[in-house]
Amino acid sequence: MNIPQSDLPRVIVIGGGFGGVTLSRKLVKQNFQVVLIDRHNYHNFQPLMYQVATSGLEPDSIAFPLRGLVEDRKNFIFRLAEVESVEPVMRTLKTSIGEVTYDYLVIATGTKTNFFGNKEIEESAMSMKTVPQALNIRSYMLQNLEKATLTNDVEERKKLMRIVLSGAGPTGVELSGAFSEFKRGVLINDYPDLNPDHMEIHLLDGSDRVLASMSKKASKKAEKYLKDLGVEVHLNTMVKSYEREKVITNTDLEIEALTFIWSAGVIGNPIKGIREQSLDKKSQRFLVDRMNRVEGYDHIFAIGDIALMKTEAFPNGHPQVAQPAIQQGQLLVNNFKRIQEGTTLKEFSYFDKGSMATIGRNKAVADVKSFTLGGFLAWITWLGVHLYFLVGVRNRLVVFLNWIYNYFNFDRAARLIIRPYKKE
Amino acid sequence: MNIPQSDLPRVIVIGGGFGGVTLSRKLVKQNFQVVLIDRHNYHNFQPLMYQVATSGLEPDSIAFPLRGLVEDRKNFIFRLAEVESVEPVMRTLKTSIGEVTYDYLVIATGTKTNFFGNKEIEESAMSMKTVPQALNIRSYMLQNLEKATLTNDVEERKKLMRIVLSGAGPTGVELSGAFSEFKRGVLINDYPDLNPDHMEIHLLDGSDRVLASMSKKASKKAEKYLKDLGVEVHLNTMVKSYEREKVITNTDLEIEALTFIWSAGVIGNPIKGIREQSLDKKSQRFLVDRMNRVEGYDHIFAIGDIALMKTEAFPNGHPQVAQPAIQQGQLLVNNFKRIQEGTTLKEFSYFDKGSMATIGRNKAVADVKSFTLGGFLAWITWLGVHLYFLVGVRNRLVVFLNWIYNYFNFDRAARLIIRPYKKE
Repeated sequence: MNIPQSDLPRVIVIGGGFGGVTLSRKLVKQNFQVVLIDRHNYHNFQPLMYQVATSGLEPDSIAFPLRGLVEDRKNFIFRLAEVESVEPVMRTLKTSIGEVTYDYLVIATGTKTNFFGNKEIEESAMSMKTVPQALNIRSYMLQNLEKATLTNDVEERKKLMRIVLSGAGPTGVELSGAFSEFKRGVLINDYPDLNPDHMEIHLLDGSDRVLASMSKKASKKAEKYLKDLGVEVHLNTMVKSYEREKVITNTDLEIEALTFIWSAGVIGNPIKGIREQSLDKKSQRFLVDRMNRVEGYDHIFAIGDIALMKTEAFPNGHPQVAQPAIQQGQLLVNNFKRIQEGTTLKEFSYFDKGSMATIGRNKAVADVKSFTLGGFLAWITWLGVHLYFLVGVRNRLVVFLNWIYNYFNFDRAARLIIRPYKKE
Repeated sequence: MNIPQSDLPRVIVIGGGFGGVTLSRKLVKQNFQVVLIDRHNYHNFQPLMYQVATSGLEPDSIAFPLRGLVEDRKNFIFRLAEVESVEPVMRTLKTSIGEVTYDYLVIATGTKTNFFGNKEIEESAMSMKTVPQALNIRSYMLQNLEKATLTNDVEERKKLMRIVLSGAGPTGVELSGAFSEFKRGVLINDYPDLNPDHMEIHLLDGSDRVLASMSKKASKKAEKYLKDLGVEVHLNTMVKSYEREKVITNTDLEIEALTFIWSAGVIGNPIKGIREQSLDKKSQRFLVDRMNRVEGYDHIFAIGDIALMKTEAFPNGHPQVAQPAIQQGQLLVNNFKRIQEGTTLKEFSYFDKGSMATIGRNKAVADVKSFTLGGFLAWITWLGVHLYFLVGVRNRLVVFLNWIYNYFNFDRAARLIIRPYKKE
């Protein structure tokens, strides 16, 4: 790989998610050469991706070019590449565009969709971890609505219009909510010859509540909001198979639907070359100490979703959301300084700012400390927090403008089929 | 095709470009059932597409969902389909989604890229007639810049960074200008290890001036602006071949470039089933009378780029730009009223509002009546006119915001490779 020479120690950061971005931006101001590697040339603001999938926002406004991340590009190098493996002894990384050596390596590769080994579902279901996948959902739903206008067979129409989501975590809940808003706005306006009742939205989850990672109070509220919006919530229900456009569950529910979205979980996206003992098999996360060092290595760190730091408060690791990644990235910048100064590294301690999910217009839930907020207050908070964390002034302005427009017009302007989706 | 029954006479409009959109919007307010058919579900604002190709605007902000075109959707039906052929005697249209009968047919299918029969160039060159094509140009240029950072071989770098455009009409000129702005802003900021001089932009044209459809004064000004921006303009130069990433011209110029964009002309996009005598072979446009009736038919009309109306002032037909299409669409609405009232149809007379092209920041040319404007005044006029004609309030706001942002930041925020482009 063609990296400009420098006298500074080189830190390679793999992955431009929340952790990698926070770290790179700050570390470049210290005495380090920062090499950021990602398979995309943009940071993708995951928390708003469901709005791309449901025609509310343009993909460009939730993505930020990684090359534009820092002002001073002298000690910041971005490379578009797939990482193949690491050789810790040689401190060398192998990638699709060649080898590169490092002084320190930071793994911030995040997660991918977890299909729990079900190959059949992996091949036939849609998921939403990348921008192209979100665009596929948007196109496919719109294509199916167009097809629905062509038939008078009610069962056929319903099958085309029905949406089934497996997994009622934040992704499943926010997508279901946004689909029902789409149904109550765009569908009624744009498709006068379709019956909106035929667009059923089914949200399935194996546990006994939605948003199982939040408080019980928040789950209750969210479930009520979803039902108010017409979402059919099926709890204690797991998908057994999805074949010939039919979802079959362990409760013997059979739902015919062309659009089947898998949002049931994530699994780590580890890189090869790290010793086996340092990888947690089940979650595919790298075991790290309190300083985010991958167990058994001095010069390799892991932060964010890919890192499994077991503590008293979090025996199974931190929640796989933006905040721990951002905070670990911030701490690691300071620890890199301490390494240079030869002082003792600081241990990570998670400051829980709370968690939230939006269900629809004026409807959100938020857990902050021991309080649970709901309704309009939570919704407004949700909007503010997401605008604040969105990267880039332009993105914030464009998103804000779109939200105001959508809110007052009950509209979702990005309902375009730019690249039609074809099931394989 | 599944079209709701109605007592009103049915007008089928093929194509949601400027002509089809203007006509549909207004005709639906009269006593007609309007069926608009397009192969995309959006209207594409062609005049700003070059900004999508050069990372200045999101595709979603220059596209408008065709289903959202009219407020009262009762007498307006949109169908996403490819037209296969028309059977004038049976007044039937065959499409990819079945047959449909009409009382009146309006062909507004516009044009496609004209490769003048050169199959080899058709297969290897890029062009910019659709949104996905514009996105391909954006991705491909960015992918090649990423690749350029990986080599120290100067010739290889230049080949990756060089852009050759064949055809200096508005598309070629506006693209070249926008690429040089990209080079002077994003390239310098984002790629500190690349030499911006290596991103050569070559604009080729067979005639002796750029913008040959405009006044000589405008051509001169535009050529000067292009040269000031560093674009290498080659006049009286035609491309003979493009093989193995090398452009060869009739003047024996050889330019190695991965990005080769064909903007040398357009040709009509006719539909099958219309008698041969009514089609102009060379331009592939339908011959129409002064009322836009396709010659030999009472119930079939053609408007916009696909219509060839020979008049004293325009012996070779009207310019293939937005204004004639819009004005013919407007007139046809009134003529449909006259048909219903049984009064005489009115003849089309083109009101030339002028033509313009933008070359870059503060630089545009405009011909209005016998005046030629240039520089900042023309540029500001260009911005205003394009915002005005853009469909949809939201699109106008988002585009306006992006322009302001790009202007003050010398930035182009949409520099994202969302779907990498692969040459076939």
